[in-house]
Amino acid sequence: MREFTADRQWSPYHDPKSVLLALVGEVGELAELFQWLPADAAQELARDEPLRTRAGEELSDVLLYLILLADVLGIDLATSANAKLTDAALRYPPGTGPDWP
Amino acid sequence: MREFTADRQWSPYHDPKSVLLALVGEVGELAELFQWLPADAAQELARDEPLRTRAGEELSDVLLYLILLADVLGIDLATSANAKLTDAALRYPPGTGPDWP
Amino acid sequence: MREFTADRQWSPYHDPKSVLLALVGEVGELAELFQWLPADAAQELARDEPLRTRAGEELSDVLLYLILLADVLGIDLATSANAKLTDAALRYPPGTGPDWP
Amino acid sequence: MREFTADRQWSPYHDPKSVLLALVGEVGELAELFQWLPADAAQELARDEPLRTRAGEELSDVLLYLILLADVLGIDLATSANAKLTDAALRYPPGTGPDWP
Repeated sequence: MREFTADRQWSPYHDPKSVLLALVGEVGELAELFQWLPADAAQELARDEPLRTRAGEELSDVLLYLILLADVLGIDLATSANAKLTDAALRYPPGTGPDWP
Repeated sequence: MREFTADRQWSPYHDPKSVLLALVGEVGELAELFQWLPADAAQELARDEPLRTRAGEELSDVLLYLILLADVLGIDLATSANAKLTDAALRYPPGTGPDWP
Repeated sequence: MREFTADRQWSPYHDPKSVLLALVGEVGELAELFQWLPADAAQELARDEPLRTRAGEELSDVLLYLILLADVLGIDLATSANAKLTDAALRYPPGTGPDWP
Repeated sequence: MREFTADRQWSPYHDPKSVLLALVGEVGELAELFQWLPADAAQELARDEPLRTRAGEELSDVLLYLILLADVLGIDLATSANAKLTDAALRYPPGTGPDWP
């Protein structure tokens, strides 16, 4: 993402609020893929094309902007996410209801 | 995430639309951290505590739900995101305006 | 909203991207209320307290920021929404599938 | 919206979580309009076409799904939003910082 951004000289556009709105845009596209699917059939329906590829693309767009935002903020996302998961495991012992996090 | 979910027997709650709404909830918490910051100062402000840690936590929550959603959908997120980035590099040659993706 | 904002001298904070992120934050809070509810029981569950009141509050927060954003942008939201609905009625004749808009 | 929905027999698709995801999709489209605009120029830029009309359309789509969601949930949105604003006026007296709500 750093190389991709640098090659295009896009970093002046990448202030945190702008990247965050771009991430929101991609989450919206992801939502549009699933909004009208029956909730209990969505997982199965996503195993077939064209939804499978489309979902992969939108999940990827969200991930790429998330990585870009972490980089802009100087946050090590992998370290931070592992710490969050370890913390969640302590705060929500097995048997806890599904309100995490 | 698989182990975490299995240990708590939460997978019945993890249909795609539910996990997607959970991801939306975390994106909302991330937005709340930045909404009133001056756009051109946000990057700098996020280098200091408590925003730095809070931003890391919310970015992590988004990532963890994104990984969970990819897993529920049977999508290999790393492969898919690399393909998307390669594709974007072809579609947006250096010099292109900042409308990707 | 104009009076509320003016009385608190908050308008310097209300550039469009900031208000939009605030709206995203409220949509996230709304999503958190529904994320783990069974899809086919959510409507019924929202008839009881405390969900009923909580949902009303979050829907209201989204509406208030939406109205604020329209005002900041100088857009007459009621006129615009009526035009959109009229247009949708023409583009999606009765019998059309549920992909509007 | 009720008439529009009834004429198309779309109400079976309008469970709360589905309508909420549709609203998220429209918020995403709204975000895409503003994401790369300079924060301090966005208000001014939105006074010109084509952004003005596009912003009005996306704001309207968000409003229409918000109204639909309120209706599905049996919530009187106008009453609820007025109550929220009255409550906010009490909780955030003039002079309070911009962290509402």
